[in-house]
Amino acid sequence: MGDERELLMIPGPTMVSPRVLRVMAKPVVSHVSGEFVEAFREALELTRRLFLSEGRVFILSGSGTLGMEAAIANVVEPGDRVLCVENGFFGEKFKDLVRAHGGEVDRLTFEWGEPVDVGLVRERLEEKPYKALTVEHVDTSTGIANPIDKVGEAARDFDALYIVDTVCGIGAMPVKVDEWGIDVCLTGSQKAIGAPPGLTLLTFSDDAWRVVEGRETPVTDYYADLRRWLPVMENPQRYFATPSVPLLLALREALRIVMEEGLEERWRRHEVIAEAVRRGVQSLGLTLFPREGYRANSLTVPEAPEGVAEQEVRRLMREKYRVIVAGGLGRLAGRTFRIGHMGTVTANDVVATLAALEMSLMELGYPVEAGTAVGEAEKQLTRL
Amino acid sequence: MGDERELLMIPGPTMVSPRVLRVMAKPVVSHVSGEFVEAFREALELTRRLFLSEGRVFILSGSGTLGMEAAIANVVEPGDRVLCVENGFFGEKFKDLVRAHGGEVDRLTFEWGEPVDVGLVRERLEEKPYKALTVEHVDTSTGIANPIDKVGEAARDFDALYIVDTVCGIGAMPVKVDEWGIDVCLTGSQKAIGAPPGLTLLTFSDDAWRVVEGRETPVTDYYADLRRWLPVMENPQRYFATPSVPLLLALREALRIVMEEGLEERWRRHEVIAEAVRRGVQSLGLTLFPREGYRANSLTVPEAPEGVAEQEVRRLMREKYRVIVAGGLGRLAGRTFRIGHMGTVTANDVVATLAALEMSLMELGYPVEAGTAVGEAEKQLTRL
Repeated sequence: MGDERELLMIPGPTMVSPRVLRVMAKPVVSHVSGEFVEAFREALELTRRLFLSEGRVFILSGSGTLGMEAAIANVVEPGDRVLCVENGFFGEKFKDLVRAHGGEVDRLTFEWGEPVDVGLVRERLEEKPYKALTVEHVDTSTGIANPIDKVGEAARDFDALYIVDTVCGIGAMPVKVDEWGIDVCLTGSQKAIGAPPGLTLLTFSDDAWRVVEGRETPVTDYYADLRRWLPVMENPQRYFATPSVPLLLALREALRIVMEEGLEERWRRHEVIAEAVRRGVQSLGLTLFPREGYRANSLTVPEAPEGVAEQEVRRLMREKYRVIVAGGLGRLAGRTFRIGHMGTVTANDVVATLAALEMSLMELGYPVEAGTAVGEAEKQLTRL
Repeated sequence: MGDERELLMIPGPTMVSPRVLRVMAKPVVSHVSGEFVEAFREALELTRRLFLSEGRVFILSGSGTLGMEAAIANVVEPGDRVLCVENGFFGEKFKDLVRAHGGEVDRLTFEWGEPVDVGLVRERLEEKPYKALTVEHVDTSTGIANPIDKVGEAARDFDALYIVDTVCGIGAMPVKVDEWGIDVCLTGSQKAIGAPPGLTLLTFSDDAWRVVEGRETPVTDYYADLRRWLPVMENPQRYFATPSVPLLLALREALRIVMEEGLEERWRRHEVIAEAVRRGVQSLGLTLFPREGYRANSLTVPEAPEGVAEQEVRRLMREKYRVIVAGGLGRLAGRTFRIGHMGTVTANDVVATLAALEMSLMELGYPVEAGTAVGEAEKQLTRL
């Protein structure tokens, strides 16, 4: 309808606060103006607080995939052995990145929907030395949340640099970079932080940065070579490449909103909302794809019900009720759909989404007692 | 003052049309929605028209420096010999990029402010075979516009792939990619196109793409590996990495404005405005840094007048008259300043900028007859 009143309930990009949208519409300022330099500094400081890290932080213009590349390209040298722990579409990107940068990959794969088994990670780390270990926090393809705190203990015990992609986790669920021993942590701007897509955020621990500084071979990337960026992150008056001024200002505003809410309260809100969505969906007889106890609080991934085409469910939800949810990704296309609930998400969004799901299923002949899922969700949402 | 009425007259980022700013403030839509996919397609088609090319076009989330890297990383393999033709801060980036990707660099350098001498380029190309030749169209550090049409003839005669960075040229001055035999051409979103910073645009000719397809070694970059992006550019419904949705929509709107004006008319407007600025500045006794006849129409680079601190001139212009111009870059810091006039720039902006320059110089004791520069500019601006 063009009146911009759709509900965007996909697992990123997510809905952005009008406060942040207004910042996007401000006239562009110089990237070396005092106003912008100050905003960049504040964004870096807020990023440090978001990651709960005293390490080096970086904000680069580009997608989360660029962040993954920066994590690998700066750490991995030709011949370095890396253990890639995988259980989803995004986790599998790390192996390609390690290989592209000359590293030797050993893969430890788990079924999609199953969490990483820390005992098996330890077994593999015992077998031979690894320079680094990669893992997804939340894999957006399956809705799994891996126990990255426990994996971190294993990585530390075996002296492997610990690289975590939390693109779909941080801001929605606890990520304690320093406490959990995460050496390189990365995310994107467009998920639970609630900013528009186009920026990637990273942290490097002292250990990780020593490895970068002590490289024997140059980083083959230029744009993702973080030693070229460090002077800018230490003093944003310096220049390496022109940052996306409006995205940076929008990120600062989104991070201010995150900190106004408080990380603990934000994690709790996401937990309540996620539980409301999960129980609502299950009350309709739908099965959740990821293993119980390891479900992310940022998205819910139900399996498509028997005899109902998930594309049709999503089409009705979108066209009739104006609620946008995502289809399955990769090998889960057609088998699951994905409901994102992170960032600025409210109780109202959850109620509207579940109602749209109920009505769409009813219209497609799937047996639903109207109001069931919404009722189940309400019982959780009162905890907000 | 915070009322967002400053005039941003730096050589990028430039002022963005309110039409484009309103697009930036729209609620974020899904990157796989029909609406976005259609916008991406249109942006790619408009990019093709901007570059006057039937070749492959790419739009990536990232700075212009990422575009430079994509140009080099996809073409250059270890051991490949590249002739880097340089006459400014940005041209010198190419040698670093070629080396980072294992290439052998021969540099042909000209004094900053002097144009590339095509005869000398030919001499170098005669000496030995080169896989590629790199050159800046407009080097934003000096305000020079190189004769890229003539350099293209030389590259073609010697079968070297011709790589041109026109970050600060295209949209303001003619760039005829196919007609001039440019194999790889790149720009950023934030200069004469009039969009905010954060996207880079590239074209690859059939010859260049054959080289990419026929590589013996893999591209070491992952995010800038254009073979991973090509399927998305052919059909934006496909996924490789999440694009910056608002920047892409803003770029489409900015390119629509470019095409509504028409390329020829836009080039003419920039020529008139540039001539007005040049004559205005010169009428105050200031010397222009780049050689006459090779001055870009997108920015003007005057030398700081004797006995006047250019930082003071810029500070007064900014604080008192709210006109933001840039200082000298690299080795020209303190020696020159840079006035950007591209994209949405109007006659009013030129008049205001020259008046602010006059008043600031007067206040600093430099002899100026009030209205001189504005008067000289008006004689040109009536040609609009």
